[in-house]
Amino acid sequence: MINEHTMKQPKITLAGAGPGDAELITLKAVKALNTADVVLYDALVNEELLGHAPASAVKVYVGKRSGDHTYSQDTVNKLMVDYALNYGHVVRLKGGDPFVFGRGFEELEYAALHHIPTQVIPGISSSISVPELQHIPVTHRGLSESFWVVTGTTADGRISNDLIEATKSKATVVVLMGIHKLAEITELFKNEGKHHLPAAVIQSGSTTNEKVAVGMVDNIVELVKENGITSPALLIFGEVVSLHPEFQIINDAVNAK
Amino acid sequence: MINEHTMKQPKITLAGAGPGDAELITLKAVKALNTADVVLYDALVNEELLGHAPASAVKVYVGKRSGDHTYSQDTVNKLMVDYALNYGHVVRLKGGDPFVFGRGFEELEYAALHHIPTQVIPGISSSISVPELQHIPVTHRGLSESFWVVTGTTADGRISNDLIEATKSKATVVVLMGIHKLAEITELFKNEGKHHLPAAVIQSGSTTNEKVAVGMVDNIVELVKENGITSPALLIFGEVVSLHPEFQIINDAVNAK
Repeated sequence: MINEHTMKQPKITLAGAGPGDAELITLKAVKALNTADVVLYDALVNEELLGHAPASAVKVYVGKRSGDHTYSQDTVNKLMVDYALNYGHVVRLKGGDPFVFGRGFEELEYAALHHIPTQVIPGISSSISVPELQHIPVTHRGLSESFWVVTGTTADGRISNDLIEATKSKATVVVLMGIHKLAEITELFKNEGKHHLPAAVIQSGSTTNEKVAVGMVDNIVELVKENGITSPALLIFGEVVSLHPEFQIINDAVNAK
Repeated sequence: MINEHTMKQPKITLAGAGPGDAELITLKAVKALNTADVVLYDALVNEELLGHAPASAVKVYVGKRSGDHTYSQDTVNKLMVDYALNYGHVVRLKGGDPFVFGRGFEELEYAALHHIPTQVIPGISSSISVPELQHIPVTHRGLSESFWVVTGTTADGRISNDLIEATKSKATVVVLMGIHKLAEITELFKNEGKHHLPAAVIQSGSTTNEKVAVGMVDNIVELVKENGITSPALLIFGEVVSLHPEFQIINDAVNAK
């Protein structure tokens, strides 16, 4: 008798899980999960989403484990392909959008090397949605004609040259994975004389653990400390931050000190 | 007897409809549509999505009408508030994400001025997803540490200064609403010596009408003409475009001419 698993066609769907709120996933990603034989999911994925997969599906967490040990990208790639060959349809569920600093393309390339059919399903990127849910638009007539999204953590641990250039621009600057370099990043803006540029830091945007600090380049480091904001967090710099409902109140309070 | 409509609490939900594919909408936006009394929708919204609203809901198209007459932003704002006061829950459904060049924040501000409770639901932005569905990641290790999204059509019709700056940067540059300025934009890249920078133009991304031209700064205008690509279209410039499956084939063919 042929094993049921060996009869399934291998297939990999790379899908975005959105920023954290379990309802900020697309219908297309839900449908993919509905037919998953295996789900490989990351640390920032809301585990409620696993409920869209059949009860019989294998669910494998490939994010950070206790002790901060991480699966290497190689290991994730291999697991993904092994599961597809042995179980059929693998949904690789990644936080936010899989192509925004998610190394999703590398996973697709690896699958293609092994001749496994792939599909990619975009997700709601935190870069746009996390400020948005705080009523900060990345663009706004008269305030910003563009937005620039940069990683705060490059492969070799340095500050990206793109981020240095971004601090010189008039774009709204969104930094992902940058909270540990916040002080250094604010120095870059200060070097450009942008001490009073509005700035916000948002932790765990879209979830019940959401925390926000709204201020300006000069005081955002202090506000982040006061509010106990830690990783995962997104940084946003630009005049659009002044549209946040608390901006005026917070800055009046700071100036009155 | 009190009219049923007058008993409903006014409420406005600004929701993103995604890039065009009817399955690229979030569960949260679908739930909002399920309880809509009125849906106000734009030209780039897939009309299939109206099926998520009750049959009894009023559906109003506020995009371009025949003869290219457009509703002004003022008219849309007023319609939105009038419907909320008279009918209850208005879902304002906008293409892509409502805060990416969508003037969504202006609509929220107008609603707030009229003391109508509002909610915003992010959508899948075409800026990231349209390249993604063509297997072009906006970021990729070794090729791009950031992406810069700029409008090709500013309020006063000029090229945005941010776009001029973007052509000088190493960021992946995504231009929305820029196809009518494609020749002018490629000149900006040429001024920076970037004749061979990979470039793609994607029309109606994620829909059955999708068309794509993949090339480089020097030949993309010609390729767009050859492929009969028109608005609505997105432009993407950067080394990441070289990851597109057709890139090598297309450029070999062009070079062999």
